[in-house]
Amino acid sequence: MNRKKELHIGLIGCGFMGRTHSNAYRRVWNFFPELAYIPVLKAVCSRSENKVKTFADQWGYESTETDWKKVIARDDIDAVDICVPNDMHAAIAVAAAEAGKMVLCEKPLARNLAEALRMVEAVEKAGVSNTVWYNYRRIPAVSLAKQIIDSGKLGKIFHYRANFLQDWTISADLPQGGEGLWRMDADVAGSGVTGDLLAHCIDTAIWLNGGIKDVSAVTETFVKERLHQLTGKAQKVGIDDACIFHCHFKNGSLGLFESTRYARGHKALYTFEINGAEASIRWDLHDLNRLEYFDHADDSRVRGWRSIHVTDGDQPYMDKWWVPGLGIGYEHSFVHQVADFLKGLEAGTGCSPTFREAFETQQVCEAVLDSAASRSWKDTGA
Amino acid sequence: MNRKKELHIGLIGCGFMGRTHSNAYRRVWNFFPELAYIPVLKAVCSRSENKVKTFADQWGYESTETDWKKVIARDDIDAVDICVPNDMHAAIAVAAAEAGKMVLCEKPLARNLAEALRMVEAVEKAGVSNTVWYNYRRIPAVSLAKQIIDSGKLGKIFHYRANFLQDWTISADLPQGGEGLWRMDADVAGSGVTGDLLAHCIDTAIWLNGGIKDVSAVTETFVKERLHQLTGKAQKVGIDDACIFHCHFKNGSLGLFESTRYARGHKALYTFEINGAEASIRWDLHDLNRLEYFDHADDSRVRGWRSIHVTDGDQPYMDKWWVPGLGIGYEHSFVHQVADFLKGLEAGTGCSPTFREAFETQQVCEAVLDSAASRSWKDTGA
Amino acid sequence: MNRKKELHIGLIGCGFMGRTHSNAYRRVWNFFPELAYIPVLKAVCSRSENKVKTFADQWGYESTETDWKKVIARDDIDAVDICVPNDMHAAIAVAAAEAGKMVLCEKPLARNLAEALRMVEAVEKAGVSNTVWYNYRRIPAVSLAKQIIDSGKLGKIFHYRANFLQDWTISADLPQGGEGLWRMDADVAGSGVTGDLLAHCIDTAIWLNGGIKDVSAVTETFVKERLHQLTGKAQKVGIDDACIFHCHFKNGSLGLFESTRYARGHKALYTFEINGAEASIRWDLHDLNRLEYFDHADDSRVRGWRSIHVTDGDQPYMDKWWVPGLGIGYEHSFVHQVADFLKGLEAGTGCSPTFREAFETQQVCEAVLDSAASRSWKDTGA
Amino acid sequence: MNRKKELHIGLIGCGFMGRTHSNAYRRVWNFFPELAYIPVLKAVCSRSENKVKTFADQWGYESTETDWKKVIARDDIDAVDICVPNDMHAAIAVAAAEAGKMVLCEKPLARNLAEALRMVEAVEKAGVSNTVWYNYRRIPAVSLAKQIIDSGKLGKIFHYRANFLQDWTISADLPQGGEGLWRMDADVAGSGVTGDLLAHCIDTAIWLNGGIKDVSAVTETFVKERLHQLTGKAQKVGIDDACIFHCHFKNGSLGLFESTRYARGHKALYTFEINGAEASIRWDLHDLNRLEYFDHADDSRVRGWRSIHVTDGDQPYMDKWWVPGLGIGYEHSFVHQVADFLKGLEAGTGCSPTFREAFETQQVCEAVLDSAASRSWKDTGA
Repeated sequence: MNRKKELHIGLIGCGFMGRTHSNAYRRVWNFFPELAYIPVLKAVCSRSENKVKTFADQWGYESTETDWKKVIARDDIDAVDICVPNDMHAAIAVAAAEAGKMVLCEKPLARNLAEALRMVEAVEKAGVSNTVWYNYRRIPAVSLAKQIIDSGKLGKIFHYRANFLQDWTISADLPQGGEGLWRMDADVAGSGVTGDLLAHCIDTAIWLNGGIKDVSAVTETFVKERLHQLTGKAQKVGIDDACIFHCHFKNGSLGLFESTRYARGHKALYTFEINGAEASIRWDLHDLNRLEYFDHADDSRVRGWRSIHVTDGDQPYMDKWWVPGLGIGYEHSFVHQVADFLKGLEAGTGCSPTFREAFETQQVCEAVLDSAASRSWKDTGA
Repeated sequence: MNRKKELHIGLIGCGFMGRTHSNAYRRVWNFFPELAYIPVLKAVCSRSENKVKTFADQWGYESTETDWKKVIARDDIDAVDICVPNDMHAAIAVAAAEAGKMVLCEKPLARNLAEALRMVEAVEKAGVSNTVWYNYRRIPAVSLAKQIIDSGKLGKIFHYRANFLQDWTISADLPQGGEGLWRMDADVAGSGVTGDLLAHCIDTAIWLNGGIKDVSAVTETFVKERLHQLTGKAQKVGIDDACIFHCHFKNGSLGLFESTRYARGHKALYTFEINGAEASIRWDLHDLNRLEYFDHADDSRVRGWRSIHVTDGDQPYMDKWWVPGLGIGYEHSFVHQVADFLKGLEAGTGCSPTFREAFETQQVCEAVLDSAASRSWKDTGA
Repeated sequence: MNRKKELHIGLIGCGFMGRTHSNAYRRVWNFFPELAYIPVLKAVCSRSENKVKTFADQWGYESTETDWKKVIARDDIDAVDICVPNDMHAAIAVAAAEAGKMVLCEKPLARNLAEALRMVEAVEKAGVSNTVWYNYRRIPAVSLAKQIIDSGKLGKIFHYRANFLQDWTISADLPQGGEGLWRMDADVAGSGVTGDLLAHCIDTAIWLNGGIKDVSAVTETFVKERLHQLTGKAQKVGIDDACIFHCHFKNGSLGLFESTRYARGHKALYTFEINGAEASIRWDLHDLNRLEYFDHADDSRVRGWRSIHVTDGDQPYMDKWWVPGLGIGYEHSFVHQVADFLKGLEAGTGCSPTFREAFETQQVCEAVLDSAASRSWKDTGA
Repeated sequence: MNRKKELHIGLIGCGFMGRTHSNAYRRVWNFFPELAYIPVLKAVCSRSENKVKTFADQWGYESTETDWKKVIARDDIDAVDICVPNDMHAAIAVAAAEAGKMVLCEKPLARNLAEALRMVEAVEKAGVSNTVWYNYRRIPAVSLAKQIIDSGKLGKIFHYRANFLQDWTISADLPQGGEGLWRMDADVAGSGVTGDLLAHCIDTAIWLNGGIKDVSAVTETFVKERLHQLTGKAQKVGIDDACIFHCHFKNGSLGLFESTRYARGHKALYTFEINGAEASIRWDLHDLNRLEYFDHADDSRVRGWRSIHVTDGDQPYMDKWWVPGLGIGYEHSFVHQVADFLKGLEAGTGCSPTFREAFETQQVCEAVLDSAASRSWKDTGA
């Protein structure tokens, strides 16, 4: 073990994302033994002392903090991982960068473009490694899609469409804000499905199909008022429950995006499809080990969408896991991102998406919200 | 046979749609023997004498004409069926109505709203039976969707989405206009995918989910110039190759529509999905005998999308065909429409969609094209 | 129309199969106008005068008979089509052949091997055209499977598996025998699912994968006693409710077949799959327009089962129908068989499967029932 | 951490299964923090010193051994986990039991019934905790199937069918025996697909549908001779490449099982289906998060197979992982088995399947091989 260089992690936040990241740090060296770096779970931080102790115990963190500034102040921390609600991303990231720490930040980068810009400038000025957890890029089937697209097999691209459909906020009795529900509080989250779900779709889209030029959007808040957990009062709901937009990509293709938390029957249906002159690809998070691929070059009589079970050793990341046919799950995308972050550290190449790259996604989100508010097309500025 | 009242049909046009209608007329009395009316194939008309003779021979028409006005002038014709390119719909329909003939018109009703209005006014003034061949309503799975929605099982509706994706015009070498390709000539067709494909999606949507209030659209013409078959010259392409729009339905739900002829891998992928608070439904033309249905009332541990094979006798129209499990095809939707037209004649109830109802679809199409042209939201006026 | 040679049909039986055949005769000239022969519906026969009159009226038969011998005796009948219960196949077919009529017989050829042999000998001695309605061969997707296999793309074959699962006889309250239920009466049907459903699977299997050498089977009758509709008494059920067998094909591959009417959830799930060294194919009647195809020669990273929507003009029979993406149904397989019968008449090549070919299926069925009864392997004798 | 009782694991074998088990031990306390016991990776053993050192390093074992007897002799080992080829299961398990160690053994329990019996007797005589790694029971969708069946929702069972299809040994150039290929050497493995793959299907079947009475089987060895890696010579292949059997379950239902390594296109297609009078269930390892369920009690017009995405907190094990819609993978089944083993230890209830329970699967395997060899039905003796 002493051959490995240690990377000392300070995790801030121990909710759902704290778990996925912790799991990734713990697993990476079992499956990527060739890496020069190994993450060491030095500290975890949360305002609740009880909660953070339990979390540290369960996940094997060496120490706990209840003030994030203490994590940043510690000399034994190399990298700060931000897993707190969106309203704290900017402050923590900027402070961490200024303290010379590497920064790994949950998505979306920030609540809005202004915050995001400060964060980008901070990490770039400090020259620290940085990445944003747009984890879906590293589902093997999605990575394979990227490989196919980069190979040029699709030809000229005409269409890109994606949606992210959920159904967990349909009940009008669901409160907003506070523990477990900060995603429904616009002040904390910045936006609703746009920042939470569409941001994923946009990140993947830009990665696979290039930049987005302009957008035309509509948003809707179906339930106008909800009890706020913190105030105990019924308050106006500020987030977008649903958001749809179409757009022009810079490569001339048309884009179409939809997200909602009111699509009964869909738990986490993230799908995308890209249509080129020569081939098309589609993917669905619900069946994440599969990639569908249509190749017009196939003999016409036996041409059809191929259902590729992406579990073979020659497919992205899959030499690390089991044997053909045996699928992996959602959590593995985070393990892959940690592995790539460590690899980037070793090679000095960074780990995509960086804050700068995630800023472009933020530009699109901002344009989408602006477009919806103004009922007009908006340039993304990207 | 002499118990049946004869309905003398004069078919104008003998292309693809002429075949589907002729087949429907010929089959209806084998499968709906209880009907009081029986269609009799009195005359078929096409400018090409050769072609029309062959067609009449193949489909059993008693006589042929090469001038549609002659069909309308004939006393032995009760109903005129319009299967010619869109630019001739209005003239024929108006003349037929004025001559007191029933009119069955292929979709879209017309090239534009002005023409459509003249047609509606003509049939209503004449008081003649009329219908537009939006045949997909009468795929049994789609009819079942309507029944489920009408039963109230879905609860409040949040989302409606539909697309109609094809890939047959991707090659830049494909000419435009003329024999077999009039759909690519804006002067003849009125529009591209909007009138050809989205019109279907809109008709179904209005039927299932009520009226559409306003729309925001984008269109694209990917191949800007094509050889015109009639002029022999390369000419600017006037149609929309692709069209996307989002909208508000009058019931407060959000709509999302997309159509294209550049989605490699999709031959005729017409899908729709509707999400209500309590249940959701989706359908796909490529597997037209299936309806997918999600019922939130199911016990949560065993809840999932149901794949309903709509081939049982207690499902719409399926008591007329074979036995459970044995599917029917595309063409049957036309047989069902003829059956319903004859039933409506007998009962005096008409056959939906009437010209008036199809006019609403035309309003949406027009608003969509206007919105795309002006890059702004448009009210449909419906 | 006078260019066509008429083929005068005498249909015996007007139940479910009478309808599918009548429909096929009536439609063939609309879709296969190039054929030299045209079927003319001369006579239909059924013991019930009422029923046969209604049927003739609905389907356009020129005359009716109530005694099948009269049909055979008529000079104006060229071909006798047998759609009656299995116990009458042999008598009618032999008499028809002896009278010099062509014979088209519903499957299974007969109740048992002895009857089948008499039938084969009769048509061969008389030298009359003959065919058995194993219609599933002519579903376009199944015909495409045959083309792929014949092209050698599969390489050496290792496995063939098929099943035909239904669920309509689960209720113990369902009576046996008589109107609509003769398939449950062993005296009339000969056997249960073996002759009714497995016979289809075996016919397709032999066609696609060659002869079957020996079999080892098990049958089960889950409901031992049912009320007989004709006697009004509870009687022992003589048919097999379920049958499973494995076998050796002559080409060295292993076969596996299962059929039942007790598989809750399956209306008419006929599936087959064939695995070769280089490629595999599978098909499912419930989605009959699709063929799944796996080609090991595809690049390994993007290899997967292809879902082929068999609706293109270059796929079997599909140049006759609509346009790509628009599916056909169960009934079309019968239209195709009529077309092929007429084509075979014109070319003098016959129409597969002939009685002789169907006899081989009967040999396998008999061996299967013998094997089950004796709990031992049986050679088919084929 | 000191609240936990430690369970000291000695792992024997560090191949594919050594990895899956090690991963399970390492992850269980992150996801099942409520357990009283925590596994401690005390020692790992393999004949190759190099290999075992690397493995220990990668997975965090405290020490290594190269002689399995040393592991058993160590006082600091509580439980021996057997992950070596089948020919060593009996010797190690018996010795471990006699030394008073708990025993966790990879499946199949042994090469044959005689070995298996010795093992069962050894653990029962020693009174030590024991379990066999039939891990598929603990895929959440499979566990849910068990819950549904136990609830009685299926009613009387008529059919059970399962298959396990692979395609990795088709090439005749693949050698047999030795490193990575011992599964192809009958002396080491005991049998081919019967012990390797069908054993899984049989274990699940007995668990879900009760005991198997008698079987009728066929096996095939498609490639008769292969180069043996250890001898360097072409040798007769002793294993079954494929095995099919049908059977009677004790509850009167019919069973059908097939396994092969020659089904081109299938990497690890393990599927099962069970049909009851009232409901049916099916599952497919390739899409392991889904369970399909058909409930005849649903309203007939909207009845269909439900595709249940088994990722909700109220479904088996899924409260331990992520959020609805986010799937898990193959490896999690092992984590669940470790958790259940530890839970069983705490509660004194054992962990199914015990050696005794796995012995019943072995009885069926033995009867299957005997039946195939003798071409006759065999009672399982179970």
